[in-house]
Amino acid sequence: MSSTWGKNIQLSIFGESHGPEIGVIISGLPAGLKLDMAEIRHHLSRRAPGQSALSTPRKEADEPIFKSGILNDITTGAPLCICFKNTDTKSHHYNEMASLMRPGHSDYPAQVKYNGHNDIRGGGHFSGRLTAPMVAAGSICRQFLRQKGIEVYAHISAIAGINDAPTDWVQPDLAALAVLRQKEFAALSDTQGKKMKTAILDAKQNLNSVGGTVECIAVGVPAGLGSPMFRNAESVVSSFLYAVPAVKGVSFGSGFDCTCMTGEENNDTYYLDGGVKTHTNHCGGILGGITNGMPIVVHTAFKPTPTIGKEQRTFDIHTMQEGVLAGKGRHDPCIVPRAVVVVESALAISLMDLWLDEYPESI
Amino acid sequence: MSSTWGKNIQLSIFGESHGPEIGVIISGLPAGLKLDMAEIRHHLSRRAPGQSALSTPRKEADEPIFKSGILNDITTGAPLCICFKNTDTKSHHYNEMASLMRPGHSDYPAQVKYNGHNDIRGGGHFSGRLTAPMVAAGSICRQFLRQKGIEVYAHISAIAGINDAPTDWVQPDLAALAVLRQKEFAALSDTQGKKMKTAILDAKQNLNSVGGTVECIAVGVPAGLGSPMFRNAESVVSSFLYAVPAVKGVSFGSGFDCTCMTGEENNDTYYLDGGVKTHTNHCGGILGGITNGMPIVVHTAFKPTPTIGKEQRTFDIHTMQEGVLAGKGRHDPCIVPRAVVVVESALAISLMDLWLDEYPESI
Amino acid sequence: MSSTWGKNIQLSIFGESHGPEIGVIISGLPAGLKLDMAEIRHHLSRRAPGQSALSTPRKEADEPIFKSGILNDITTGAPLCICFKNTDTKSHHYNEMASLMRPGHSDYPAQVKYNGHNDIRGGGHFSGRLTAPMVAAGSICRQFLRQKGIEVYAHISAIAGINDAPTDWVQPDLAALAVLRQKEFAALSDTQGKKMKTAILDAKQNLNSVGGTVECIAVGVPAGLGSPMFRNAESVVSSFLYAVPAVKGVSFGSGFDCTCMTGEENNDTYYLDGGVKTHTNHCGGILGGITNGMPIVVHTAFKPTPTIGKEQRTFDIHTMQEGVLAGKGRHDPCIVPRAVVVVESALAISLMDLWLDEYPESI
Amino acid sequence: MSSTWGKNIQLSIFGESHGPEIGVIISGLPAGLKLDMAEIRHHLSRRAPGQSALSTPRKEADEPIFKSGILNDITTGAPLCICFKNTDTKSHHYNEMASLMRPGHSDYPAQVKYNGHNDIRGGGHFSGRLTAPMVAAGSICRQFLRQKGIEVYAHISAIAGINDAPTDWVQPDLAALAVLRQKEFAALSDTQGKKMKTAILDAKQNLNSVGGTVECIAVGVPAGLGSPMFRNAESVVSSFLYAVPAVKGVSFGSGFDCTCMTGEENNDTYYLDGGVKTHTNHCGGILGGITNGMPIVVHTAFKPTPTIGKEQRTFDIHTMQEGVLAGKGRHDPCIVPRAVVVVESALAISLMDLWLDEYPESI
Repeated sequence: MSSTWGKNIQLSIFGESHGPEIGVIISGLPAGLKLDMAEIRHHLSRRAPGQSALSTPRKEADEPIFKSGILNDITTGAPLCICFKNTDTKSHHYNEMASLMRPGHSDYPAQVKYNGHNDIRGGGHFSGRLTAPMVAAGSICRQFLRQKGIEVYAHISAIAGINDAPTDWVQPDLAALAVLRQKEFAALSDTQGKKMKTAILDAKQNLNSVGGTVECIAVGVPAGLGSPMFRNAESVVSSFLYAVPAVKGVSFGSGFDCTCMTGEENNDTYYLDGGVKTHTNHCGGILGGITNGMPIVVHTAFKPTPTIGKEQRTFDIHTMQEGVLAGKGRHDPCIVPRAVVVVESALAISLMDLWLDEYPESI
Repeated sequence: MSSTWGKNIQLSIFGESHGPEIGVIISGLPAGLKLDMAEIRHHLSRRAPGQSALSTPRKEADEPIFKSGILNDITTGAPLCICFKNTDTKSHHYNEMASLMRPGHSDYPAQVKYNGHNDIRGGGHFSGRLTAPMVAAGSICRQFLRQKGIEVYAHISAIAGINDAPTDWVQPDLAALAVLRQKEFAALSDTQGKKMKTAILDAKQNLNSVGGTVECIAVGVPAGLGSPMFRNAESVVSSFLYAVPAVKGVSFGSGFDCTCMTGEENNDTYYLDGGVKTHTNHCGGILGGITNGMPIVVHTAFKPTPTIGKEQRTFDIHTMQEGVLAGKGRHDPCIVPRAVVVVESALAISLMDLWLDEYPESI
Repeated sequence: MSSTWGKNIQLSIFGESHGPEIGVIISGLPAGLKLDMAEIRHHLSRRAPGQSALSTPRKEADEPIFKSGILNDITTGAPLCICFKNTDTKSHHYNEMASLMRPGHSDYPAQVKYNGHNDIRGGGHFSGRLTAPMVAAGSICRQFLRQKGIEVYAHISAIAGINDAPTDWVQPDLAALAVLRQKEFAALSDTQGKKMKTAILDAKQNLNSVGGTVECIAVGVPAGLGSPMFRNAESVVSSFLYAVPAVKGVSFGSGFDCTCMTGEENNDTYYLDGGVKTHTNHCGGILGGITNGMPIVVHTAFKPTPTIGKEQRTFDIHTMQEGVLAGKGRHDPCIVPRAVVVVESALAISLMDLWLDEYPESI
Repeated sequence: MSSTWGKNIQLSIFGESHGPEIGVIISGLPAGLKLDMAEIRHHLSRRAPGQSALSTPRKEADEPIFKSGILNDITTGAPLCICFKNTDTKSHHYNEMASLMRPGHSDYPAQVKYNGHNDIRGGGHFSGRLTAPMVAAGSICRQFLRQKGIEVYAHISAIAGINDAPTDWVQPDLAALAVLRQKEFAALSDTQGKKMKTAILDAKQNLNSVGGTVECIAVGVPAGLGSPMFRNAESVVSSFLYAVPAVKGVSFGSGFDCTCMTGEENNDTYYLDGGVKTHTNHCGGILGGITNGMPIVVHTAFKPTPTIGKEQRTFDIHTMQEGVLAGKGRHDPCIVPRAVVVVESALAISLMDLWLDEYPESI
């Protein structure tokens, strides 16, 4: 159904993995925002495939083509459309899969929903490739938020059960986090990062895949964004994050861990220090659906890539016979490294939408 | 801001904990649905406070008053409004808190957002009391879904780190789950339930509180509900669940656990048995944002009740001095037992909204 | 389906003409707005029935009951719910009509849409009575807009083809318009007003009814509200106005008349006079979907009340036989006099929603 | 702000008159709809400029480029994106206008809203050129509706005060209306059409412009589409029509004329003839916001093109001095002939959105 998200800024995303072009329309952007094109390209490159042995060999330049909404790199206030050409598509890989439903993939439910009319090549509209427009949009929102003093960071908090070094949710080490934006593999701990990479390459070797978790942190978010009930900050953020393919869990602050804590342990007590602060940040910067001025902390769980080279039991949708499938195509043995910037983008877009509830559009 | 949720059925919820009345308008209900009023009252009683030592001593009958949208207990198709009177309010408990911001509670961010104009008595519009209208709405949606062969169940999967007996996500024991609707404490295992209750009473004794997790399962959901991208089933369900006070995590199927699994382990392989089935259900019945015909499995993390009797460090919003607060009011030492039916309601409302994307409104 | 309107402020309206209560939830109101209750009651009294021979003899006090969202008459920022009790209902009038579909009324299409389950007593949810919550909401929005320098006026511009004195769209006589709010019959010209009243009383005498037009003018609206495309000011305003029962036409500025003018005649040329002004205001203060700083001028056409005492040909929905119906019930021979404040409310609510696109919520 | 419209099908439109490309994303289309590409091109050609002396000399092929959502001309259910290249742009015409605000045009309010950042070349995002994507979307919706037995027609009902031959709203002459789709000038009466053309050419000769009215009729619409209150059929249709540039009035059935009729005259009495029929159709097929099974009749008023060659008084936004402007650029002396298919498209899109409220998505 709907490929539109947002109240104040609205995104519409279109495209299929093996169609000619994918893209996004962003409406509601304030006029007069000077875009740093290099930054947009940089964030896109963090998501782009084909850059190392850790990701799919599919190569896409992911060069954003601006079709509307800017003049001399400054937003006009009109809907901004950004497109990307699909170049490196090898659709013949999908002939066998057309009939054999990939376990863990959208093939079968999509087949039912669309009566077999959906484009299954490369995952069609379900492809992780559709996160490129999200990153482009997120990159613009980040530039808007930066003017308000808000910055978004993320790192790979775990892959295959191997945890990265923990962050301080009260006073995150922003310098360390900023460095990650320049790294191919966004783990804070080199030691742990190395173990994670090994786990990914092992999985690749075994025609298998692994999953992981991304921790995303936004700093500089003022208290007062969000609402009780249905427009609460957590609903807004999670509704975007679950639109990212392969996400199976979203939590804020101590998340599922807080269920093992007492109220005394979990409550973030206040102190005053040139402003209202809390000693801990188990709530992840959100109380009653509203930001409290502390860093926003959100965790996103990514399942292991469902398409794997190993043989798996499945069935043929046309003959309705059971069968066995070994994925061909080109796939990431782990999508988490490339997903880091996607999660950052999701949080940035969500925060900008919430910001615009409270503050004027003028920049 | 917005207290409205939904695309096909829409809920608007109003009210404050200590105002005269709370309620909900539900629009988009099909005409001709015969309501089982006893069932609605029963589900409301599962949520109602004051029923045991495990919950707040506040007593509310939670008698639903239908103001519109039905005639002779049959829906007319017009917006259905249900209200509840607030009777047992003791607002004087909130005098001290008016100035001292409760740690872990919405007090401070709400104060910022509303410039101090929000009604803080009993949590105002942030109160867990606002889940009563959710349950009433959910109870109606459940009756609609039942006609389509869909049934929603839930149990307390953990409190204070004590786990309930596991469920079978492929073939849940529906009889055992159904029994829980009649029980005061919805744990499958009596042994584990007893331990959980002890943990709650211990917390209460210590002027403290504990959190927990609810596992909710919907069976009979056909393949094909939901969409890729922004109207995916997980976004719809989680956007409602995060509107429930105290929720800090939402996950589907194996959720955060799947990040430690390989693709081979996590993928749910298919077989045919009078229909398309999967050997496991790690995806929680949702692939690519669309239901796959297997049971929907969702986990919701509830933080420990923030208002506790223990002294906690905080500050006074008016004098801007640090201070110490010990919650008075009447509060649940653990809201999870009463939250079970709220989670069921959230899932039922979400599934009905998704159902109406695909199927005609006629009943 | 949906009884919800709005992006920044959202209204949900419920109720039926002969149910126990009708009402509205308004969410998105800024906190801290001090409400003038006397003004709200005054506007409601302008719409209330039973005040003269010109309207239905049904008597309703239309006393607003505030259920949430205010404390000491100041908005809290939480959804504000206002209800009205239905007291003077005579449902037996509707027994015959239950089967005989009233020409010009919603009876038949509602019967089809709701499979005969809709509440037809007094028009059910289709009743003009549902405009009372609109007026209450509009009255609050007017108080918000007044703080921004915006004021909304209206008059009966025509009834039964008899025109009121024209207004000056560039510099409306605000004093004359303001006086109308205190008058039972809001015509600028007493002479023309007298003729209109005679036309109404003649129609009543003849068991017939008449229609008319309301001209509504908002002054003080800054340039820059609205948008091109789908969130243009005219779409927003007209989408609300068409929700008012009996409206069959909406136009802005010279409206349908501008189709007989040349561009040279219709274009509003600019001059500077302590600000940007136009010599004429054929565009009704809106160009390209955006306000231009001149008064907003909107015309709304109301059809003659469909329920009339005269015999009319119709059919019986149950026997599927043709037949003849003479309306009983209690009806206005012309709803235009009572609709003036409804149109003002619709414009005020629309303008506030547009205002909040551009400006912060803070009051 | 928002360039998104719709509940069940959603349109997002982007582009500027002189940017590289314009286009639309349509989401919510059912999968499996076989598109007749020739028909889409045909409808686009009816809107395309540069075809006769009656329209602007700008030449645009308006060749639709499908970027997503179809495979072998069959919809996949994924968002469908259609783009159009801008080729014949002469932006130097707009240098003078950049400072001098065109009377009757969006220049000044857009300048205020966007703080001078909007793209003014060719009207930017305000350009009538943005109706090409509307027509493409409408053309797809018409093909969907045709499968349900619904067909949409329109004609130029008046230009410059010259009326076309009237239509029969009860039993429209569908053959005569269908012929108009093949004609360059969609008037039913050749005599009246000739007079209208003369009026247009006279206006052109005089460096002036004229306006007019389009009557649009949909047949085969079943009773029961739409709702009371905010999702009424008239609100849905008018909210789309007012998004079409230059529209200043929208009415249904007898519209503003019904204000001069009595209830007895205006009410459409029923009879039975192999179904429920009405003797007249003053309501334009909509009662209480819901379709009644009779033809939908809607009238749309277009103002005369604001950009004219004649000198007009205005001011310079940069020097804030009064001045005089004579429009250069290339403009239609009357946009009504090209607007006929735009109005048809608006009605088709609106009806499909309303249809999907009631009926399943399956085609």
